[in-house]
Amino acid sequence: MTAADKAVTAAVLVIGNEILSGRTKDVNLGFLAEQLTALGIRLREARVIADLEADIVATVNETRARYDYVFTTGGIGPTHDDITAACVAKAFGVALVLDERAVAVLTRHYQPGQLNEARLRMAHVPAGASLIDNPVSAAPGFQMGNVFVMAGVPSIMQAMFGGLKQRLVGGPAILSRTVSGFIAEGTIAAGLGALQDRYGQLEIGSYPFFRQGRFGASFVLRGTDAAAIAAAAEELRTLIRELGAEPMEAEPL
Amino acid sequence: MTAADKAVTAAVLVIGNEILSGRTKDVNLGFLAEQLTALGIRLREARVIADLEADIVATVNETRARYDYVFTTGGIGPTHDDITAACVAKAFGVALVLDERAVAVLTRHYQPGQLNEARLRMAHVPAGASLIDNPVSAAPGFQMGNVFVMAGVPSIMQAMFGGLKQRLVGGPAILSRTVSGFIAEGTIAAGLGALQDRYGQLEIGSYPFFRQGRFGASFVLRGTDAAAIAAAAEELRTLIRELGAEPMEAEPL
Repeated sequence: MTAADKAVTAAVLVIGNEILSGRTKDVNLGFLAEQLTALGIRLREARVIADLEADIVATVNETRARYDYVFTTGGIGPTHDDITAACVAKAFGVALVLDERAVAVLTRHYQPGQLNEARLRMAHVPAGASLIDNPVSAAPGFQMGNVFVMAGVPSIMQAMFGGLKQRLVGGPAILSRTVSGFIAEGTIAAGLGALQDRYGQLEIGSYPFFRQGRFGASFVLRGTDAAAIAAAAEELRTLIRELGAEPMEAEPL
Repeated sequence: MTAADKAVTAAVLVIGNEILSGRTKDVNLGFLAEQLTALGIRLREARVIADLEADIVATVNETRARYDYVFTTGGIGPTHDDITAACVAKAFGVALVLDERAVAVLTRHYQPGQLNEARLRMAHVPAGASLIDNPVSAAPGFQMGNVFVMAGVPSIMQAMFGGLKQRLVGGPAILSRTVSGFIAEGTIAAGLGALQDRYGQLEIGSYPFFRQGRFGASFVLRGTDAAAIAAAAEELRTLIRELGAEPMEAEPL
């Protein structure tokens, strides 16, 4: 597992009661999972937690100690239920302070007289944090240590991530190749398990599908060793043919 | 917080590398969040974790101790990467055993000679577990203590949940009322925070939207005290009018 030794890791924290009640369906996790993988960063876990100080503080501290990067979404607006910034400050043991750069951004954004106390909440960050630009609605996110705090609204979060990703240093590129076939998982399972045993440096996943009225499965070979992926894919194609099906490069539509 | 004292709580564990890599977008969390809320069960957190034994065992043990119910999705198929059942057995400190009822179900489902060793993996459950029916593709889920183990394929998971939910005992019904308005969060934030302070038994959330070319927000009042929700909703409608907007019963389309 030499590649894993150098792996750069991350966790995503989705913060918000509305996700846990089912009112809002989260789409930020899927976006961040794709983006991080493309950057060579391995998303090791994601958590959805409530707008509760104790939960947020404990989860931020647990994950920032365990992973190279932590990305949070949600809870940085102007209302009473937006407590993420205060919780991150508490997690780091620093004060929540008014950031003059953030005040300047909000002052430019709002009409005169509109920058009230509630909106100034959005200019408070943990002492020592750097800002993350918000090209959509001005109020910035922030980076504190290895924790990146972003908005929960997907369009804003995506814009924030687009701006911050140059700060991230990924590990070796995570390569992936899919081989599919109209073959039942239970038919190929023994051969697939043996393939995984022979290619311990790869992560081989099996995902069933039902398409064109037939059952099949896609097999995903993932890792950082391009030669091993190519060799394993060739063995997998041979295995699928031996079991009477035709290997495909992707899941059929 | 008398209502919270009696609250019945749950966690959801989404198990699978494919969610963390971004290959597959999870939809099980949103479904379970809605269903549990409707049953009077409060989903306190959700975690997405990889197909790694140490992670699954630790997470199952942490959450089953903390919450009344734990629901897992994913990792119960016939291939080498399906390790959820073995991990749950390990978490409970019991053996993974061949379940004769599950064997009978699979024997009826497959053609003679098709029930190979890989497919028999799906008939193994932790010793002492009860089965969860799978009306879609036969291979059952299982309940072990307060942990409910289901498939990751959404249609199968939903069918399994439909069959198991009669086993769940919810707490007081979780009531919810939404009041919306074309009003900026920053404009109403002070009044909304004061309303939350007056109604400590309710959870008041604020969710901005952009519709019909205008910004607005929906305010969700949630709790178990119907009279408090009605009273708070009336105060909220008055507040919105005082700030120059018209309260609406729901978010505009």
